[in-house]
Order: sequence, then C-alpha cells, then structure tokens
Amino acid sequence: MTTPVNRTQIPEGVRDRLPREAARMRRLCGQLEAVFRSWGYQEVVTPGFEFLETVTAGAGTLGRREDLYQFFDRKGRTLALRPDMTTPIARLAATKLSGESLPLRLCYFAPVYRHRDRKAGSASEIWQGGIELIGAASAAADAEVIALACAALSAAGLEGFKIGLGHAELVEGLFAEAGVTPEVEAELKEAMVARDLVAFEKGVSGAGLAPEKAELLLSLVHFHGGYQEALDRFAGAGNGRVARALERLGEILHLLEVIGVADRVSLDLGLVRNLGYYTGVVFEGYAPGVGSPVVGGGRYDNLLADFGGDRPAVGFALELDRMLAALERQGRAGDEPGVDVVVECPPGRTAEAMQRARQLRQQGLTVVVDLLGRSGVELAAYGRSLGAGRVVSPDGAVVSELPLRRSRSAELTSIH
Amino acid sequence: MTTPVNRTQIPEGVRDRLPREAARMRRLCGQLEAVFRSWGYQEVVTPGFEFLETVTAGAGTLGRREDLYQFFDRKGRTLALRPDMTTPIARLAATKLSGESLPLRLCYFAPVYRHRDRKAGSASEIWQGGIELIGAASAAADAEVIALACAALSAAGLEGFKIGLGHAELVEGLFAEAGVTPEVEAELKEAMVARDLVAFEKGVSGAGLAPEKAELLLSLVHFHGGYQEALDRFAGAGNGRVARALERLGEILHLLEVIGVADRVSLDLGLVRNLGYYTGVVFEGYAPGVGSPVVGGGRYDNLLADFGGDRPAVGFALELDRMLAALERQGRAGDEPGVDVVVECPPGRTAEAMQRARQLRQQGLTVVVDLLGRSGVELAAYGRSLGAGRVVSPDGAVVSELPLRRSRSAELTSIH
Repeated sequence: MTTPVNRTQIPEGVRDRLPREAARMRRLCGQLEAVFRSWGYQEVVTPGFEFLETVTAGAGTLGRREDLYQFFDRKGRTLALRPDMTTPIARLAATKLSGESLPLRLCYFAPVYRHRDRKAGSASEIWQGGIELIGAASAAADAEVIALACAALSAAGLEGFKIGLGHAELVEGLFAEAGVTPEVEAELKEAMVARDLVAFEKGVSGAGLAPEKAELLLSLVHFHGGYQEALDRFAGAGNGRVARALERLGEILHLLEVIGVADRVSLDLGLVRNLGYYTGVVFEGYAPGVGSPVVGGGRYDNLLADFGGDRPAVGFALELDRMLAALERQGRAGDEPGVDVVVECPPGRTAEAMQRARQLRQQGLTVVVDLLGRSGVELAAYGRSLGAGRVVSPDGAVVSELPLRRSRSAELTSIH
Repeated sequence: MTTPVNRTQIPEGVRDRLPREAARMRRLCGQLEAVFRSWGYQEVVTPGFEFLETVTAGAGTLGRREDLYQFFDRKGRTLALRPDMTTPIARLAATKLSGESLPLRLCYFAPVYRHRDRKAGSASEIWQGGIELIGAASAAADAEVIALACAALSAAGLEGFKIGLGHAELVEGLFAEAGVTPEVEAELKEAMVARDLVAFEKGVSGAGLAPEKAELLLSLVHFHGGYQEALDRFAGAGNGRVARALERLGEILHLLEVIGVADRVSLDLGLVRNLGYYTGVVFEGYAPGVGSPVVGGGRYDNLLADFGGDRPAVGFALELDRMLAALERQGRAGDEPGVDVVVECPPGRTAEAMQRARQLRQQGLTVVVDLLGRSGVELAAYGRSLGAGRVVSPDGAVVSELPLRRSRSAELTSIH
C-alpha cells in the first residue's frame, strides 16, 4: 500500500538548505576549490545519473545494489543516481581523459545518493567535495593525497582533526592468513565498516579459528600504536601482502612526517571503508564533536581497468555537511552575507529608487529596493530583518542608520 | 527488449564536463552569484529529487508528466528529479520561509531534468542559475527581475542579448475572445511554445473561427512593434484581461526605460513559456548565435498557493550552457586556470620536492610535484602540457623556463 504524500513535504534523507546554510556551503566549497586548484587539481562535472552498469563497476562485495536509486530510460535501460563520485570520475578518466599527461589531478563538488532508510535520520543525499590522483602508483602519490586532505581541512578553518591510516592489503592478507570462509570474512568486514567491535568479536569467536588466528584478527581491530608497534605485531604474522602493506605505510608516514603533517596522522589498521574498490592505503579523518568521518579515501588501483584504462589511482571525498557541522561547533562556520542598504520606495518614485540602488551597487554594496511601500518604523524594521546598515531615500538621503550585525561595519564606511 | 549497455558510456541527454568547461561553468556561476547577491538575493539549495506531487504542482496544462524521471522510495511513493527549480523554491518559500520578511529574494544554481529523447540531441540535464522574487505583486517587482536578468547577462560578459516581453493574460484574454475550444487552444499554445508558426497558422485556419477572430490570433504571433503598436492592435480587441495586461506591460517598459535597460527589451506578445504556471509578464532573452533562449522567466502568482502560501512571485532561470555557448562565440568564455610551477622529483628527493611545493603554494602559486620521476625534455614537455611557466628542482633552482600560455606571465613575476 502506498503511503499518501503531502506535496509540501520532501522525501526522507534529503534536505532543503536555507540561505544561511547555503551561504556556508558556498563559502566552504570556494575555500576547498582554491586549495585543490593550488595543488593542480582541476574540477570536472559528471552527470547526475549514470547507467547502472557504470555505478556498480568495482563496487566489489561491499557495494550495496539495494542502496541505489534506480530508474529507467525510454529504451528500458536502468539508470542510477551515483552512490559515489570516484566511479564516475574513473569512467571519465579512463575514456575522455585517456590522452592527457599523467598523473591526472581532478576534483569535484557534487551530491551522491544512497538510499538508506534502514537507519532513521541518515542522509540519502550526501554532498561531497573531493579529489582523484590518477596515474601515479607511488607512496609519494598516497602522501600527496593525504597531505592535501589535511590542507583542505585546515583551509576550511577546521581545528583538531585527525586522520587514521590503514591498508586494504593488510586486512586482506591477515584474513587470508586466518583462513576464514568467504561468508565469515564478509560478515567480519561489515562489522569493521560499521566499527562494531561487539559484532566483530562475536563473528571471530563463532568462526572456529585456532586461538592464535583469532587473536591476530582481534588485534587488528583493537590496534593502537605507532609504526613500530604495527611492525612488532604484524610483520611476522603474515604473508608477503601484509609485509608489503606495512612497508608502504612506513613510506607514507615518513613522507607525511617530513612535510609536516604527521601530527595529524595515526595508524588505524582495522579501517575498512564501505566501498569495495580499495586496494592500498585507506584513510578516514575525524573532527572533534562529529561522530562520523569528515573525510575518507584511499587507493583503488583496479577500478579504472573496469572502464578499459588500467591505471593506479588514489583519492578522497570530504563530507561537506559533517565539515559544516564540525565548523559550527568550533564557531567557524562563518556569517551569512547580508544586505548593506535598503532603498525606500514611496509611491511614484520607483524608477528613482531603482536608479539609486543601481548607483549604490556600482560602489560594491549589496542593495535592495523596498517593493512593498514601507516607511518609518516599518521600513527600519524591514532593514533590520535583512541585517542592513542603512535605509536611504530614493535621492540618497539617509533615512535610518541601523545597528550593524557582526563585522559588516567596515565595509559600510564608504557609503555617502 | 532492453538495449545492451556499455559501462563506459553515459545516458543520452547528459554530459561530462571536462576541466576547461567545468572551469568556465564555475567562473560563470561565481559572476552570477555575485550579481544576485549584490541585489539582495540569497542562495538556497533544494534536494536533487522531490515527491512527484511536488514537482507537478502548478504545472497546468503544459506540464508534461511523461518528461519526468520517476522512481520510487521504499514506501512505494513516487519520487522525481525536478524538471524546474521554481516549483521546489515555491515549496520552500511557502513552508520553511513563510515567517520571513517579504519580499523573499532567493537564488539558485542547479541542474534540472527533463526526459526528452523525442528530439535527438536535446539535453535531459539542464544547468540553470536563477532567482525568485516572492511576495511582491507590482510592476516594480517585474521590472526589478527583468533588470536583474539584464545585469546578470552583462556581468557574465555577454554582449548583444535581447529580451522579449509578453504577458500570459494577454494570450489568455485573446484566446477567450477568439472563443476556440480547449483542445484547439492547447494545440495552438503548444505551437506557440515551439514558435512553430506553420503549425499555429494551420491550427487557426482549421478552427472554424470568424475571420476577424482568426486575424486577432494570427496578429499575436506575428506581432512586431513597440508599445504604441501593441495598444493600437490589441487594446480595443479584447476584454478587461487584455487591457490590464497591456497596461502592466506599459508600466514595466516605462520602469525599464528609466533605469536604463530599455534598449535590451522589446515586446514579444506571442511568447508562451513551456511551463504552465505563469500568470503575468513572461520573458525570454536571446544571445547572438544561440538559437534557444539564454534566459526565461515570468510571473507566477498562483503557484505558492499550491503549497499553502498564497503569494505573488516572479523570477527567471538562466540557461547556463547556452550562456557558455554564446560567450564562447564572443570569445569571452575565459581561460582554464593553469599550473604555475612544476617541481621536479628525482628518486629519493620526494619529501624535499613536496616541501618546496608547499613553500611555493604559500606564495599563492599553483604548484604540482612531478610524481613520475621525469627529467630533462620529458619533464619540460610535461610542464608545457600543464601550461606551467617554470620547472624547478626540489631545492628551488629553475630547471626550465617555459613559454607561458595566455595571460599568466604577470602572476609569475614574483617567483624567485
């Protein structure tokens, strides 16, 4: 049975952004775009929907097809709203940008869509800003991407953030070493994605493993410590995959230390991201007071091959709403741009008022004409509601000086 | 039968924007947002999809439900990608902004979606930037919106654009006067929307009208002239609706003349827009060399009532891709931002190269580190491919000076 719809409502999981929030989002995206650009990352824009076959490329065992918003074109093909931006950009890079010099440095700002009504209150429309570095396989490329994530979070004004590093091959290698069944492995990874230690421990204890194998897996999710501790615990525990993953993490940590962001970074070896395409380093960043990561990313060396262009790649996505929430907690979300001047518009003087507004705008001011014939205290109240500093008559005479909101006084000193 | 899908392709009607085009779009939106803001318009962001009941509000007889991309939520309710932004903003204004001072001045930048595979090559994803002025019913409000459309097109650098004005009530009044059947009226309006004069004339001649009634309708679509000619032709021809529409057009034209944009504006009395909710002035703007309008808008005084907030409103949407096409034809689309400096990264000097890049970025430069170990002519060629002015070694010594693209030399003089 269909639930009745009230047309004034919006679907679950999506939101309207009113002017204050939209202004904060615009400012944040501008700050991030400037940082990405200064590191040589160029913006691309992909379509709002793709073929189902495109968005499910590389999703691996952790991709959840039932989370996709799907619909049809007139030829009966299935379309889907993109659940992430990395896959469309991999498609773009492997096709339309295949002739460009490597590495490609690309960035984006866009919403992604995941149909998750299982958790009440979770967002279905998720605004992200991110980058992809395509065509460079080295630890230097990993370090650049992690350092850029730090630079982006700092440029937005965020303080106190921390980035945890893991490695997909460390996890894969240890699971291979433990010898669990594919079903148990999938269940354990799901628990790791959710950081659900209780479910993980239950899954391990129910898997019938030898005690030392079980202990190995448990020590992965419980790991706390520096690089030496990681070597001590895992270097002898496994196969070549584990050793190579540890070696790569060491190289990345060394580079991050030399370039001065090591204080932001620590090891989080139990980190498993909720997209299945990662093959190397993975990372997530957290900000004080926000429970979910503000940034997540990693290396995905096999995804482009799904689009006919076999190239290594690494990138991240910033979660813009979580960043705004963290900035708000820190009192750094910024002010809404306000109006500088309201021009009074008495009957019969509309054209004159509009000319005055035009002239004031040429001085760089934000100006509105009162279109509802207000005067006196009513007009002053309207000006205050807009945060305006001044009400002027159509001939430019000051009608009211209003108490200024916040830090706008400086900009207004040039009005005469 | 389902058409097979190649996952490297994208659906018909949507496009990827590569860096050059994305940079142009970002710059254009920035210019427009600055103009909208200086006129007191505040950005809002609405969800990427709405309930079907929302997007079909006010669509009237010209809304085409089969053009909607529709899908379902988990409760079986129908969702749709928005076919325009005016309706979601009307919903927002009538609900979440109902307590704000009037008029509301809102703006947006967003794609809208219309499934039109009937015309080959037509876009299904249409990026728009626009404004809505809500809560002011006067000719002054109409004039503000039209003047702002002119200011926005000018701020983007577009030259030679022209805006044609019509009035929904003039058309409605003349159809009422002609006394055609609803079916014929719908068919004739469809021809007017498409500016298909042949279909219109055929429809009129087949409608069995008295010669003077047929002549009246034909003179609407063939009208060329100024306000006096409009009065001469139509003022005596009709009922009160026609007379009031002409009077309103006269007021708007007068205001636009006094505020100095009358040279951009002419009457286009046969204008019917392809959305059914207009109730007053309607307008479309054309730029040289682009066959479809770069801006369209009008007054829609009944739409907010569909969302429980009965308020007059007027607005427009700029068609961003058509603006970019027009700017490109005029050589004004702008350059892609390039890279200033490439830092060489020989084996073992990665950390040093990254530190150098960081220091150069602190000077405001756009800097990339070569991550593929290039040197010599290969590195210089890479630098040229990025439009970089200089290649430096990790210690900052200049390795190559490259011929600069375009106007970037000035920015680079400060590198040492």
